[in-house]
Amino acid sequence: MATQGQVITCKAAVAYEPNKPLVIEDVQVAPPQAGEVRIKILFTALCHTDAYTWSGKVQPGDHVIPCYQAECRECKFCKSGKTNLCGKVRSATGVGVMMNDRKSRFSVNGKPIYHFMGTSTFSQYTVVHDVSVAKIDPQAPLEKVCLLGCGVPTGLGAVWNTAKVEPGSNVAIFGLGTVGLAVAEGAKTAGATRIIGIDIDSKKYETAKKFGVNEFVNPKDHQKPIQEVIVDLTDGGVDYSFECIGNVSVMRAALECCHKGWGTSVIVGVAASGQEISTRPFQLVTGRVWKGTAFGGFKSRTQVPWLVEKYMNKEIKVDEYITHNMTLGEINKAFDLLHEGTCLRCVLSTSD
Amino acid sequence: MATQGQVITCKAAVAYEPNKPLVIEDVQVAPPQAGEVRIKILFTALCHTDAYTWSGKVQPGDHVIPCYQAECRECKFCKSGKTNLCGKVRSATGVGVMMNDRKSRFSVNGKPIYHFMGTSTFSQYTVVHDVSVAKIDPQAPLEKVCLLGCGVPTGLGAVWNTAKVEPGSNVAIFGLGTVGLAVAEGAKTAGATRIIGIDIDSKKYETAKKFGVNEFVNPKDHQKPIQEVIVDLTDGGVDYSFECIGNVSVMRAALECCHKGWGTSVIVGVAASGQEISTRPFQLVTGRVWKGTAFGGFKSRTQVPWLVEKYMNKEIKVDEYITHNMTLGEINKAFDLLHEGTCLRCVLSTSD
Repeated sequence: MATQGQVITCKAAVAYEPNKPLVIEDVQVAPPQAGEVRIKILFTALCHTDAYTWSGKVQPGDHVIPCYQAECRECKFCKSGKTNLCGKVRSATGVGVMMNDRKSRFSVNGKPIYHFMGTSTFSQYTVVHDVSVAKIDPQAPLEKVCLLGCGVPTGLGAVWNTAKVEPGSNVAIFGLGTVGLAVAEGAKTAGATRIIGIDIDSKKYETAKKFGVNEFVNPKDHQKPIQEVIVDLTDGGVDYSFECIGNVSVMRAALECCHKGWGTSVIVGVAASGQEISTRPFQLVTGRVWKGTAFGGFKSRTQVPWLVEKYMNKEIKVDEYITHNMTLGEINKAFDLLHEGTCLRCVLSTSD
Repeated sequence: MATQGQVITCKAAVAYEPNKPLVIEDVQVAPPQAGEVRIKILFTALCHTDAYTWSGKVQPGDHVIPCYQAECRECKFCKSGKTNLCGKVRSATGVGVMMNDRKSRFSVNGKPIYHFMGTSTFSQYTVVHDVSVAKIDPQAPLEKVCLLGCGVPTGLGAVWNTAKVEPGSNVAIFGLGTVGLAVAEGAKTAGATRIIGIDIDSKKYETAKKFGVNEFVNPKDHQKPIQEVIVDLTDGGVDYSFECIGNVSVMRAALECCHKGWGTSVIVGVAASGQEISTRPFQLVTGRVWKGTAFGGFKSRTQVPWLVEKYMNKEIKVDEYITHNMTLGEINKAFDLLHEGTCLRCVLSTSD
């Protein structure tokens, strides 16, 4: 490639300060070093966690999805067979640099700009660790499958990998955003019979039905705590519950609406730092299980390509989560839409 | 039997007030009604939960262990195959009466005395629900196997049924009383390699070694929180931890000393009512699992006889937990010993 070994100047959205609009800048992207891959970003999307990443042995020209959760296949996490939480590059991605030299590959007018969540996809070009890149089917439409790097797999995997929902189960989903809807889709394909959506915005039920939600409860319509409402509705509680908001009070409700003896609650949402969950230990001693999930337990390099295949075979939805399409230059408007609650996913094209 | 259909007068320890010594009284024990069994108690023991119970289709003369956790094999809990928490008689045992007529079978001078934890074994005779009686091998020594109605199975089952510890695992046990030692024995037979005992009384390590504990940590010897000490000691945390005390702060430490990605913590101890556990949700989102266990997940009528067989075949310890033998008349002294911490289990003979 003509750009090999060269610095590339391209457009990127830069966050100079927290809670200030992103600034579209001309950034210099340095060539990749050993164990790194430079990627031309065509489409990206954004979410409340603002996380987006992807990895692999990649040849120039390959189509890839960068994943915020790496998969090195060598560390004790990867080798354990018990978790997807690869630890290989976390010490670097956690602070916005690359492992090799603990430096950034981005700069604006010679001043370094930190990487973001190990992927930095709000840019026309990015450099990521090779263990963070999933190589996918070149036939897959990038403007759709870019969603398979984050929220959709998180919801599906929470059901399939973390909770392991069985046919005939009843399920409660707290929060009907993209992740909650993906949980509903996962639960439906797993054979759950009752899929109860819980949200303080009753308008969300209509859309949620398309993803498998077949009952709806708005906590605002009830005097009783929501966990009691769900327990009454289900003759003792649900088999599985999922918190897809990031609210610690809702996490408690999600645990406590589970059936005694076997109910399992999975925390999917990300809470604000410093917040804590709590409950009476009796809830666990009487057989409820409290778990959490990150990226739905999926191993990124191995399973993101498999999820792309499932999409290509029409076995999982992706298009249905995309409510808006914009350009990288409109990223601040896209974030506003997200906060308004009318947008599921907004895909950004990096071309104008 | 000569006593069939007759009221029996015998000795029993009666609690008239909380936190006051028990009173040995002549009590009248009414004949059993439908679905009930009257049992002559030969040996009993006591623990910090003061719980002790046992069940089955029982013929006069059978040897049985009354179990505080019933097993009816008909309710949705029993049929689920997922839990041992039978719900059949709980509404009665929870308030000290029998299901049939919501009355007690015990009286002193015509005044009713409530049943205790569904078993009432601090008496020479007791009446329990038939679903709470495990029929056992008549060859088994009752003065030993009476322990298989509570604490020892709780510890073994926490490892075998609830945590499902695999060979090669490392394990942390908080609290080295009878239940903690039974956890150690369970972990050893499950093939755990490192079995770390944690107790504020270093004298307990010597005894604990006999049950499989091969490392010991006294939190008082460290400045750092105990969870950090264990994480440092085990290169990231243990695979499984067990709280065998009933202290909500220790329950948090037990969760947080688990390894990221897969560590599972089981609450075995019973906390004081009203107390709550808490942690940061990040602990669960990064792959730790929080569970609890009651009677170690064992189905009482089905599995207590199996545990008696294992004892008879010398596959599990029982004798080693018995540090004291007394009579029913000495029950208040036995409770004092328990609180002093020098006693594991004290078996009470109901004969003088």
